[in-house]
Amino acid sequence: MNWVKGHGTENDFVLLHDPDGTEFPDLDAATVRALCDRRRGVGADGVLRVVRTDALTDGAPWVDEADWFMDFRNADGSTGEMCGNGVRVFAHYLAELGLVSRTGTVPIATRAGLRPVRFEADGQLTVDMGVPGLPGPDDIKVTASGRSWSAVSVDMGNPHAVAFVDTLDDPGALVEQPTWEPPSAFPVGVNIEFVVRRGPQHVALRVHERGVGETRSCGTGACAAAAVAASADGPAEAYQVDVPGGSLTITFLPNGHVEMTGPAVLTLRGEVVP
Amino acid sequence: MNWVKGHGTENDFVLLHDPDGTEFPDLDAATVRALCDRRRGVGADGVLRVVRTDALTDGAPWVDEADWFMDFRNADGSTGEMCGNGVRVFAHYLAELGLVSRTGTVPIATRAGLRPVRFEADGQLTVDMGVPGLPGPDDIKVTASGRSWSAVSVDMGNPHAVAFVDTLDDPGALVEQPTWEPPSAFPVGVNIEFVVRRGPQHVALRVHERGVGETRSCGTGACAAAAVAASADGPAEAYQVDVPGGSLTITFLPNGHVEMTGPAVLTLRGEVVP
Repeated sequence: MNWVKGHGTENDFVLLHDPDGTEFPDLDAATVRALCDRRRGVGADGVLRVVRTDALTDGAPWVDEADWFMDFRNADGSTGEMCGNGVRVFAHYLAELGLVSRTGTVPIATRAGLRPVRFEADGQLTVDMGVPGLPGPDDIKVTASGRSWSAVSVDMGNPHAVAFVDTLDDPGALVEQPTWEPPSAFPVGVNIEFVVRRGPQHVALRVHERGVGETRSCGTGACAAAAVAASADGPAEAYQVDVPGGSLTITFLPNGHVEMTGPAVLTLRGEVVP
Repeated sequence: MNWVKGHGTENDFVLLHDPDGTEFPDLDAATVRALCDRRRGVGADGVLRVVRTDALTDGAPWVDEADWFMDFRNADGSTGEMCGNGVRVFAHYLAELGLVSRTGTVPIATRAGLRPVRFEADGQLTVDMGVPGLPGPDDIKVTASGRSWSAVSVDMGNPHAVAFVDTLDDPGALVEQPTWEPPSAFPVGVNIEFVVRRGPQHVALRVHERGVGETRSCGTGACAAAAVAASADGPAEAYQVDVPGGSLTITFLPNGHVEMTGPAVLTLRGEVVP
């Protein structure tokens, strides 16, 4: 089994090349978990299977609109809809292999729909992350290690609670999964962002992802944090959002969408020892 | 840069093939840290550079006694003396490449001296881990998450504190690095093993390694736990020690040494993307 490894702001992925859908037609959850195991496998936050849309057999709606489908799996083996860091790595991989051009925008088919990815002149990539939904102010409280902060909920397709804090440097405060009140605010769990201001249109965050724990980066979390900061600060064109694994730029479009710009890197090529 | 990845009870290593010492003559700490980074690099607990002893230029004392030198580096880039799980992976790698025979015993040169590694019929490997030093009973107390246990100190070349506990299943108790009293007992830090009994000559442990945090396996820790259990239970031939990443067998020799038997696996082969 051959694979390529890459990451976007240290959100890392195993890429499986399967243009015709014949290499890994039965990629099951156990195989994904084995690949993502950081001791016994390649180690990653998820798997990106690289498939041509015309190789999809289930009446895929994207065949006429995108050449490539990102078959995204979470490290636990479940299928994933979209991943903002993953789709940049996916498009960068296609470009490195010469399968798409770096000029202009490439539409990538995902389970969440089409995502146009733009190649920037500096090598970074930009993806449309949709419209942030800010139901707040809704009196949410998040608690970690006995301290509590008020938070704002944001819907980025997945749920977020964004809390501004004084410092991100307290290592004890963020070791364990924070809790939230009222429980009814997020009946199926929530991603929690702790955010500090770094300057004008510039914040930094640490994030606890639902079901995962603290991670090095979360694309939707960066969008949620920028949306909350902008709603407090007034209209802005863009925010820089520093995450533990790097830095992302969130740009606000006139149509209400946010775009996320960030790096993508391929790090390794290898095979599983038979 | 080509590499192979392997693990012993999930203590994992990047192997760099450098028989003549010409491939990686200047393997510096930054390169080791980059290789061991689990997001941006291959990801491992350490690096094992595979060098012929006659390629060593510093008057190595092993040239007449061993063909191969295990140049062991910790994930932080520092040089390491010996690693019980690592030396099994190292010898297994040599055998897989046909560089040593699986019949009998192969001496491996390490910074801690010669370590004979024996290939067992079932594919496992056995290494002499030296003589456990039990200075206790010495009234040591270890504390984690507000609970305290008495512990016994064991010298395996590195310092250990072994505490028997009722259960290993409390996830909160072992998240953070435990502390110990009196501080003077371990002025340069200590590896702490929490141990439960599973049956006659059978224990299980979780381990916090000095400077690392909780790990999936610790060879010297397994020896220390078995030595403390045996000193309480009376003479025994061998103990099974379950660690989070697998299982090890510690055998007591008439000369006071302990041997550790366990698995070694090669998982991946690859290259760093230029």
